[in-house]
Amino acid sequence: MKLDKAENLIRIYRDGLLNDTIPFWIKHSVDTEYGGFMFAVDRDGSRLDTDKGMWQTCRFTWMLATLYNQVEQRQEWLDLAIHGIDFISKYGFDKDGRMFFHLTRDGRPIRKRRYVFTEAFGAIAYAALYKATGQEKYATKARELFDLIIRYLTNPELTSSKYTDTRLMKGLAIPMILTVTAQELRKNLGDTSFNSYIDESIAEVRTDFMRPEFEAVLENVGVEGKFHDHFDGRMTLPGHSIEIAWFILAEAKYRNNDSELIKTGTTILDWMWEMGWDKEYGGIIYYRDVRGLPVQEYWQDMKFWWPQNEAIIATLLAYQLTGDSKYAIWHEMVHDYTYKYFPDPEYGEWYGYLHRDGRISVPLKGNIWKGPFHIPRMQLMAWQILEEIKTGI
Amino acid sequence: MKLDKAENLIRIYRDGLLNDTIPFWIKHSVDTEYGGFMFAVDRDGSRLDTDKGMWQTCRFTWMLATLYNQVEQRQEWLDLAIHGIDFISKYGFDKDGRMFFHLTRDGRPIRKRRYVFTEAFGAIAYAALYKATGQEKYATKARELFDLIIRYLTNPELTSSKYTDTRLMKGLAIPMILTVTAQELRKNLGDTSFNSYIDESIAEVRTDFMRPEFEAVLENVGVEGKFHDHFDGRMTLPGHSIEIAWFILAEAKYRNNDSELIKTGTTILDWMWEMGWDKEYGGIIYYRDVRGLPVQEYWQDMKFWWPQNEAIIATLLAYQLTGDSKYAIWHEMVHDYTYKYFPDPEYGEWYGYLHRDGRISVPLKGNIWKGPFHIPRMQLMAWQILEEIKTGI
Repeated sequence: MKLDKAENLIRIYRDGLLNDTIPFWIKHSVDTEYGGFMFAVDRDGSRLDTDKGMWQTCRFTWMLATLYNQVEQRQEWLDLAIHGIDFISKYGFDKDGRMFFHLTRDGRPIRKRRYVFTEAFGAIAYAALYKATGQEKYATKARELFDLIIRYLTNPELTSSKYTDTRLMKGLAIPMILTVTAQELRKNLGDTSFNSYIDESIAEVRTDFMRPEFEAVLENVGVEGKFHDHFDGRMTLPGHSIEIAWFILAEAKYRNNDSELIKTGTTILDWMWEMGWDKEYGGIIYYRDVRGLPVQEYWQDMKFWWPQNEAIIATLLAYQLTGDSKYAIWHEMVHDYTYKYFPDPEYGEWYGYLHRDGRISVPLKGNIWKGPFHIPRMQLMAWQILEEIKTGI
Repeated sequence: MKLDKAENLIRIYRDGLLNDTIPFWIKHSVDTEYGGFMFAVDRDGSRLDTDKGMWQTCRFTWMLATLYNQVEQRQEWLDLAIHGIDFISKYGFDKDGRMFFHLTRDGRPIRKRRYVFTEAFGAIAYAALYKATGQEKYATKARELFDLIIRYLTNPELTSSKYTDTRLMKGLAIPMILTVTAQELRKNLGDTSFNSYIDESIAEVRTDFMRPEFEAVLENVGVEGKFHDHFDGRMTLPGHSIEIAWFILAEAKYRNNDSELIKTGTTILDWMWEMGWDKEYGGIIYYRDVRGLPVQEYWQDMKFWWPQNEAIIATLLAYQLTGDSKYAIWHEMVHDYTYKYFPDPEYGEWYGYLHRDGRISVPLKGNIWKGPFHIPRMQLMAWQILEEIKTGI
């Protein structure tokens, strides 16, 4: 990569992060009356719904503390991260220690989900706050949540299942969330004992979810790692797999460019780029069937914001770790596609939901699923990786 | 409507039913080895998944028995309806009397849902079999299932809820399913005591779900009928409301053209046509927000097969009951749109999932949600209504 190209990209990511994404959400989401954030906003930032999704609440809190920890010690970011964690601590928990998924504006619970994903986003928020403040109570809470996640994942009988025992499946989301949560807690709590969870999770992805016969990572497999030739068993989400590809590449980097981990991460990226990149319209497509059959999900060919973000990180990291120009080309392809269709030059931030051909499906900027996470995380990481690449040029 | 136009439409609906839809499913879905049906088939009828969805199993069984009861006493239809009901009776029930939602090919349960919709489709299947065979055991089972539905709907504590009590909502789907299930049981069991459920359900739709201030029928309201200004509370599904519009119009017809019922049904149709008809591309769109705001469902502007089918029935029935030429024009609009985009002239049957502009999203003909129900029900009813209209010309 040439120096001026790297510098131009840094400008796009850094300025997007600091002058667009974060200011957009600080302006439009902070609830000064009841605490926490309201992310359900229309294209122009106007309120669509006052309800509070806890995934996004935890993630924005994590993001703000992470900016404070990694970019600069800006008081506004720390104050808002504490504003977020205070709301989470006050209203986010059920009596059993589990977290709610969806609250009213004033913090009354509307829904708790079976799955422990909210708790994973809670754990990384508390860990980033510990790093930012040094307050032990945050580290304690992060560890408690991590232990709870492990307890629920290793004792499935604690959760009522949607399914009978006839065909027990397990999802890629579990080793994914464990990997990235353990990575975050290791970093912010300074505790390498989380390595074992990362090792186990990556081993599970390799053994059970990566399928050389399809050159794909499956989204669901039997609990023993068996392929099931049904809609669910054949399903792959390229954006999801590309996300775990970069979690694994980040682990390779942390472990002094471990070559086995680089090979695993780039194999996943190579497979899923081939399967997920839309050769007609560009961009990473939402669902594929590993046998090339029609999928059951009818929104399967839409272009969501987050798979594009994850592909920008993964291709850039693969380029940094391997020097293979193929990844620089892929990065350019997905960057150019993404920046052509997703950012909203008029009101700022990005659209989230496009049709396959780039038409906007819904123009809103936030809802219970979309908030300040995938975009600013990508902008921060891509900026940081490019600074490292630039140093080496 | 002119006579030659009516005769031409009859040909399209009747021939579509008898020479395309029903033969397609008889050819591709019957499981001669394990019983029941496998509906998950690709465009050309080839198998995508051997699992068995119980909604479609009950619905096809109902459809076959209904053809036998209303079109002609064809032995093949009766034999296949019994083939269906035997599988349902053998494998469809849990020990608590509730029905499963999703089975393996050999009848092992994979999933039971909280909601009692499978039981409603089971009830109409048993009732149609009673009408076809006169066997009391089918009538008994139909009544048992109806009683179970009423028990679960009037005692929500029997079902574990996805939500807390903070903002209790109720769905339009409940009075809808009660109306049509009671209508079917009344007809096939010859018992007018089901009228009270129909009266109560239509009254609930009028009082709680019809909203003159939005000129719309809401999909979800507070349990006391309150409008909630949140994503879920503002949501309307034009195809769903148009479906209940014709249930109400059918009730008006049954009750000697009851003018209040005609007014309720046509008011819903008028509102939801205005809100649901896509003035740019044609067809009935999937979701709308009653305040015109972006909805949370990102597949909101797709064109599914079933809303078009329900709109064909509703407009034709409204025309028959009112003689208002507006409804004949709307019928022509939705008929022409539907027959341009949905039928597959090469392999038969219809596509189910189109993008807003008519592009095909997934070409499959069946899955756990799509099977032989909305299309053949529309073809049969439209044919019957047109025969009546023709007689009056």
